[in-house]
Amino acid sequence: MIIGIDVGGTNIKSGLMDLDNKLVFDDSRPTGTTQDEIVNNLAEIINELNDKAKSDFGADVLGVGIGVPGVVSKELDHVFKCTNLGWFDVPLREILKEKTSFSVYIDNDANLAALAEHYVGSLQNVDSGILLTLGTGVGGGVIVNNKPFRGGNGLGLEVGHMVIGENFFNCSCGKNGCFETFASATAIVRHFEKMLADNNITVDHEISSKEIFDRAAKGEELPLKAVDRYTTYLAIGINNVINVLDPQVISLGGGVSAAGDFLMDMLTKKVTENLFVKGFPSAKINYASAGNKAGVIGAALLVKEEMTK
Amino acid sequence: MIIGIDVGGTNIKSGLMDLDNKLVFDDSRPTGTTQDEIVNNLAEIINELNDKAKSDFGADVLGVGIGVPGVVSKELDHVFKCTNLGWFDVPLREILKEKTSFSVYIDNDANLAALAEHYVGSLQNVDSGILLTLGTGVGGGVIVNNKPFRGGNGLGLEVGHMVIGENFFNCSCGKNGCFETFASATAIVRHFEKMLADNNITVDHEISSKEIFDRAAKGEELPLKAVDRYTTYLAIGINNVINVLDPQVISLGGGVSAAGDFLMDMLTKKVTENLFVKGFPSAKINYASAGNKAGVIGAALLVKEEMTK
Repeated sequence: MIIGIDVGGTNIKSGLMDLDNKLVFDDSRPTGTTQDEIVNNLAEIINELNDKAKSDFGADVLGVGIGVPGVVSKELDHVFKCTNLGWFDVPLREILKEKTSFSVYIDNDANLAALAEHYVGSLQNVDSGILLTLGTGVGGGVIVNNKPFRGGNGLGLEVGHMVIGENFFNCSCGKNGCFETFASATAIVRHFEKMLADNNITVDHEISSKEIFDRAAKGEELPLKAVDRYTTYLAIGINNVINVLDPQVISLGGGVSAAGDFLMDMLTKKVTENLFVKGFPSAKINYASAGNKAGVIGAALLVKEEMTK
Repeated sequence: MIIGIDVGGTNIKSGLMDLDNKLVFDDSRPTGTTQDEIVNNLAEIINELNDKAKSDFGADVLGVGIGVPGVVSKELDHVFKCTNLGWFDVPLREILKEKTSFSVYIDNDANLAALAEHYVGSLQNVDSGILLTLGTGVGGGVIVNNKPFRGGNGLGLEVGHMVIGENFFNCSCGKNGCFETFASATAIVRHFEKMLADNNITVDHEISSKEIFDRAAKGEELPLKAVDRYTTYLAIGINNVINVLDPQVISLGGGVSAAGDFLMDMLTKKVTENLFVKGFPSAKINYASAGNKAGVIGAALLVKEEMTK
């Protein structure tokens, strides 16, 4: 049995995965605020799950994997930077080894979500694939040769900050034209709100990306225009990724994936039209399917990957 | 001894490489026009070099590697498409096996140039690196985990057609904003000519990228403006590659590399300013150094790679 932990800005999700990659138990609790508090919560979770594995399943815990929203060392032992958690230079393996006796493996959460897709979701049976999460921002994780690909310096994929055009507002990173300012769920809402303002239309509720896609699917003019621009730029970003990484599958996760066939059909058409190398097998696009516990499963799978190296 | 062959649109370069990766003999002849003629030239070159290896060096030829400007099968035996050569679906290994008795390995020429840089040039001693060639267009080859990276579908890197902004003319591929319309040698010439026209300046000679860089280095206003825009977009493209592949080294080849320190200093500054993940080791930028026979050496090295798999 393996412990998987997914540290988010708000909650820590955790669970026990058996050796058939099934999550047999899962839990969630608030992340905490200070570094000490979060680290103590992690130690507590590990010790509790270790006890639970023994008492409820009569099983030993073989290892612990942890996903964090940040930059991790190539040795998967040290967190360099998690802006959301306020962490800088945290020797997390060393700290938790002392508190739990387990030698944890740590990785970026997007890499682990991609790993979960590779084992139990939309990237199964492909050597090379990418998970793009279209949510508040645009994140991503890559599988190359059936392994998580973390780049030559361990910085991983920061595909949301690939510049793909000129936009009417700057990215939070300070640049103009970042992929995520066009292709995140936040981006389509922001653009739609601008269209409403430009047309002197006021609304009495908060607009969600889902509302825009739903109204566009019904043929409403302004939402359709927003979705048209959205899919144009999402296709540009996806074609850029194809031109650089040539994956077999690109899987879309995050809030936007709720838009289903309506988005997928429009998007696939635009991506195909703009392929540079036409007429050869190239990346298929699908939706992520490992579910909202992909982060926990991916963290547990990391341990499996590292132990079978 | 290994035979390396680099098939260009104008000339076929070829040579004999010893097992210390030294080119001990090299040659060049016109490519030819029809598919039959080119294939016959290739067979002739292979048979001649095989004889030469025996007579001049008393050595056996262990294998033959061939680089082509196009799309090659994952099995490295079949050319799917070389627009420059007018080739579509050519079973080149099969054909040459019959004509020479050698079972050749074939790869895209940009991949092989990157392989040469990895063994004997600017990408030595790094696990993961990229060669970007800034010439008529922008091409590239990737090394990941010390191996040529050809993508999940074997289509390789088409980084020149990554969209990075909006440009005043469309790319030859039909899209607007392709990296190569900003960052090739052709691109800076085209932009400079537009600036001249906009300023009603006529010139009596053909402008080269070298002239623009030389005049900019001397502080001349218009060329400096052209180089400023050029390096801004080259930096955007390079940062995009960093955000997707996170290589340890990005090496610049092609005509533009003649611009030396003047270009490199300006470029490195802009790339560093626009890094998304700051304060960590990230891609170093240098110039390609394997020389103008990199294609031949890379083709021979491909055989070495494949034979030691």
